[in-house]
Amino acid sequence: MLTFGAGIWAFGQIVDRYATDGYGPARTMTQMLDLAAAVDGLECLDINVPFAEGISKASELAPALAERGLRARAITPHLYTREFARGAFTNPEPEVRRRAAERVHEAVAVARELGADYVKFWPGQDGFDLPGQADYARLWELTVSAIRDLASAHPDVQFAIEYKAKEPRVRITLADAARTLLAIDEAGQPNVGIVMDFGHSLLAGETPAEAVQLVHRRGRLVSVELNDNWRGWDDDLPVASVHLFETVEYLLAVRRIGWDKPVLLDQFPFREDPVRALSESIRTIRALEQVCDRIDLEELADAQERQDALAAQAILWSAIGMARAT
Amino acid sequence: MLTFGAGIWAFGQIVDRYATDGYGPARTMTQMLDLAAAVDGLECLDINVPFAEGISKASELAPALAERGLRARAITPHLYTREFARGAFTNPEPEVRRRAAERVHEAVAVARELGADYVKFWPGQDGFDLPGQADYARLWELTVSAIRDLASAHPDVQFAIEYKAKEPRVRITLADAARTLLAIDEAGQPNVGIVMDFGHSLLAGETPAEAVQLVHRRGRLVSVELNDNWRGWDDDLPVASVHLFETVEYLLAVRRIGWDKPVLLDQFPFREDPVRALSESIRTIRALEQVCDRIDLEELADAQERQDALAAQAILWSAIGMARAT
Amino acid sequence: MLTFGAGIWAFGQIVDRYATDGYGPARTMTQMLDLAAAVDGLECLDINVPFAEGISKASELAPALAERGLRARAITPHLYTREFARGAFTNPEPEVRRRAAERVHEAVAVARELGADYVKFWPGQDGFDLPGQADYARLWELTVSAIRDLASAHPDVQFAIEYKAKEPRVRITLADAARTLLAIDEAGQPNVGIVMDFGHSLLAGETPAEAVQLVHRRGRLVSVELNDNWRGWDDDLPVASVHLFETVEYLLAVRRIGWDKPVLLDQFPFREDPVRALSESIRTIRALEQVCDRIDLEELADAQERQDALAAQAILWSAIGMARAT
Amino acid sequence: MLTFGAGIWAFGQIVDRYATDGYGPARTMTQMLDLAAAVDGLECLDINVPFAEGISKASELAPALAERGLRARAITPHLYTREFARGAFTNPEPEVRRRAAERVHEAVAVARELGADYVKFWPGQDGFDLPGQADYARLWELTVSAIRDLASAHPDVQFAIEYKAKEPRVRITLADAARTLLAIDEAGQPNVGIVMDFGHSLLAGETPAEAVQLVHRRGRLVSVELNDNWRGWDDDLPVASVHLFETVEYLLAVRRIGWDKPVLLDQFPFREDPVRALSESIRTIRALEQVCDRIDLEELADAQERQDALAAQAILWSAIGMARAT
Repeated sequence: MLTFGAGIWAFGQIVDRYATDGYGPARTMTQMLDLAAAVDGLECLDINVPFAEGISKASELAPALAERGLRARAITPHLYTREFARGAFTNPEPEVRRRAAERVHEAVAVARELGADYVKFWPGQDGFDLPGQADYARLWELTVSAIRDLASAHPDVQFAIEYKAKEPRVRITLADAARTLLAIDEAGQPNVGIVMDFGHSLLAGETPAEAVQLVHRRGRLVSVELNDNWRGWDDDLPVASVHLFETVEYLLAVRRIGWDKPVLLDQFPFREDPVRALSESIRTIRALEQVCDRIDLEELADAQERQDALAAQAILWSAIGMARAT
Repeated sequence: MLTFGAGIWAFGQIVDRYATDGYGPARTMTQMLDLAAAVDGLECLDINVPFAEGISKASELAPALAERGLRARAITPHLYTREFARGAFTNPEPEVRRRAAERVHEAVAVARELGADYVKFWPGQDGFDLPGQADYARLWELTVSAIRDLASAHPDVQFAIEYKAKEPRVRITLADAARTLLAIDEAGQPNVGIVMDFGHSLLAGETPAEAVQLVHRRGRLVSVELNDNWRGWDDDLPVASVHLFETVEYLLAVRRIGWDKPVLLDQFPFREDPVRALSESIRTIRALEQVCDRIDLEELADAQERQDALAAQAILWSAIGMARAT
Repeated sequence: MLTFGAGIWAFGQIVDRYATDGYGPARTMTQMLDLAAAVDGLECLDINVPFAEGISKASELAPALAERGLRARAITPHLYTREFARGAFTNPEPEVRRRAAERVHEAVAVARELGADYVKFWPGQDGFDLPGQADYARLWELTVSAIRDLASAHPDVQFAIEYKAKEPRVRITLADAARTLLAIDEAGQPNVGIVMDFGHSLLAGETPAEAVQLVHRRGRLVSVELNDNWRGWDDDLPVASVHLFETVEYLLAVRRIGWDKPVLLDQFPFREDPVRALSESIRTIRALEQVCDRIDLEELADAQERQDALAAQAILWSAIGMARAT
Repeated sequence: MLTFGAGIWAFGQIVDRYATDGYGPARTMTQMLDLAAAVDGLECLDINVPFAEGISKASELAPALAERGLRARAITPHLYTREFARGAFTNPEPEVRRRAAERVHEAVAVARELGADYVKFWPGQDGFDLPGQADYARLWELTVSAIRDLASAHPDVQFAIEYKAKEPRVRITLADAARTLLAIDEAGQPNVGIVMDFGHSLLAGETPAEAVQLVHRRGRLVSVELNDNWRGWDDDLPVASVHLFETVEYLLAVRRIGWDKPVLLDQFPFREDPVRALSESIRTIRALEQVCDRIDLEELADAQERQDALAAQAILWSAIGMARAT
């Protein structure tokens, strides 16, 4: 049975370029933790550094988490705020790149103190905007060397890259699973892996269940994240609200590789109550785990081996409980 | 020769859900106007109501515009901020719909006082998020009746709808030119037209030059706006930075219908100096006007009439000054 | 309870530009009818004119259909074969446009003889390929006047346009529901409607359940067709094989407007046995009708009225039989 | 100065699933060669095995090529025709996989006899159609082992994989550059590289100039191909007919790595005369080479190093000869 975590940002106030006054009320770190604790089944968090208002040190956060029965699964340094608008690892200013590295070192310190499982790199401003603007080889080299340097500076710490094709940068360098695996390969450090976010995989044009096995195959799977979108943008919607079959086969793929760590929810509940939106996703995943339980894996493997698409789908339909006459 | 305007938001501080501390510094209304005045060739603005900080009444804004040689082309009520997160015209709460109408009435008052040419509806929160969530007929009816009521309340004022397929709402009801024309047709008011934004047209999967003639054909073209994007999102990039030929044919289409009002720039210069980014777009359009001047329209019409795609393109290539041997 | 038909092409040999030797064996018209008759629940066909090899006259086809318990739901003239490669209604050669009209007249004669419910226009070659190539106003006018002329020549015959965004033409003029409604409006004939193909709707970036109500609202819904795809291309896959929730809400929309005519399957079973692929789709739709039966429509309407996306989805989940704990 | 080749298919009769009677007339191999020879600047061909009608042996083809001043750049076995509809390397039937290997061995023999530079793998049927249908790990392993086996069987022959995201298979396993590099890495043979087709790169959501440097960086660039499309499908249009700036930066990237082998045109001139369509593309590329000549590479590198997007684009605009006032 899977266990669950979430990105803490689901519980904060979200803004975008239109609703600049924010969706929902502003919330302190403590209020965010309270909401997280109210989600039935939620055990751990991916926490941004610096923290949201109200808590400034890891030593304050540790008891606040413990009191609520929560723990830090991951620490994500803010590498995509104003100062990094033109890139963190690939910023044209060496001084800004240095500050990005510092942010990572701070995140590592927090991760150690909180006992988090990994530090996440999310280089969402590292890329470009217009055709002709970028020296792609240079962006790549800066990216790879930043990863190499940071990972080798903390050989005992696990790092994980969350790839994404776009947003906030118009085009992001580490856009998909395969490119990120190549960058990791080139960086040559054993302690760098990948955060496999279902929605980012759809956005990259991948089939998530296909991408997760590719990442696992290279031994680089560090985190599994769920949510959903309409394929054209990272909508961060509730789990399986759009792609039911793709989510089922993703869960099957995760089960097949023996995943026993938490599944993280990366949702932005712009217009919903966050506790309800995340609770609903956990209920959905639990229901889909039962769907997976009902699948005869040998029968499915047999249909897949024969490439009998209709038979394979019939097995899924039957497992979700749909009575299709035969 | 075309004249130019811009959405005033290009000169303000932009935020998004990641760089919540904003791209560039915060700016007062006066600072924004100073920047707008610094763009060579910029004559008018699309101005949001309520105004940005620093100016609160139209009577203060009027002289501030005049002093800088600017005027109000359009007034756009903020119908997409926090209170309208679940819709303005289609919000489930009648009270919020009433407030949206009030916002429009305020915008009309400002438009009258500033002598703006039209009031813009941009119902970017009116739509839905998930499959199954919406009663589409109900959303449509609320949209049409809001437009009808507002337009008939101010029969001497021109209104214009800016359609968009998504963002901020995950899916927006008035998504493209043709659907918006149908809504206008159903609303049955003569004083409602369309803002034809080049980038929104690309985002909707349209060919902008095709869409603009369709809107014109129905007598509903109120505003022409330029910018660019990568087709999958409303990136609001500088003019023709991605789609050169499509921009040329859009300008040809605009010229063909005798457009003599301003062309508005709808850009979000996240990482660029706004004065420079907009000045560059105006220079680009002026250069493309010369490209249009160099096109022998009869020759082009002849190639198009014969559906000789290669000949038609050769005319464009030659007009942009590319020496292709023959 | 819905009844079912299919495009006859599902039973023929399919080719594409790579497998030019065809997916599956070549089949005569009689063989295709035999396969159609073997699909449990299939009652009617959309039949291309000219017919496939083996039957050349409607008077031969009529008994062949009757013997097999089938009837003609629609007749579709081939307006997209080699001679129409650069357009049927919009072909630059008046002589080709004349031949296209003749093809339609032949189709009308067949439709009358077979008692088909409508003649389908599928102007899949009418559009353009490159930026700058087309005079969009001219393409639009030729399209509208062809529709007007053909419909007014046969005022007692129902015509229906199947819109599509692309393929075989790189970009097609009648690309989506709303544009097609505008063309129909301009043509001004009462006997022209729309074929609402689920997959074409996805391809156009529409939400199918939203588009079908829009077409119905204007009184132009003539045919309802089901299949599925991955949103980027007209894959013509089995029903609900990718988009389960969207298919459910489409069926709800169809039910809501009281649809009592057949639902047509427009599938291209490239790699599957056609009898099995279509039988499976009918079984799926029947199962989804039971899902629709299980939905408390008032409860759903209430959730939609409140824009409670999570509650609306919970109703769908529960109706498909998924046990999500609460 | 670049030299040019083309896929021979541009000169044959093209069919698709609608115009099954073919775009343009049927042509024998000799007629196709005559047309190829008529394209000014075309020196070499990518030739399918088995050959088109009229020539059956390499020993006949060799003099036919030589007489016309042509040579074989590449040999591409037909691995995507009817018998391989459910995959060549990943077909569920071992016997079909064996036949696919045989086809490759035949292609190798032809390549040797004609002195072609490489044998192309284009596994366009290797993938899947529906969610849930495939065991992705199994597809990957079959793909990798087929490549390994074939490459190691002919260590003196260069092989090159042309990746593509879809078509003819609904979803293709070797979908993009990075995934293909990972497969090549896993296959572990030095004589396997990549065909970098500009249009396939757009289709995969890549920036072609970025992808080509990535492939080169791993030492796997075997062939450079040009054409264009609208990003959603492999339209195989004339060079730079849609994406001018992207094509310029692609040519700059190719120049930067010192590419001195032919650039291949992969076009499908459905509605154009093939000689004219390909001649036009060569003229375009030659004009764009002059554009590249006019670019001050140091100035561009400096703008890119500073991430000055507007300055970088201004350099491109100026190089294409556009007079933008400053």
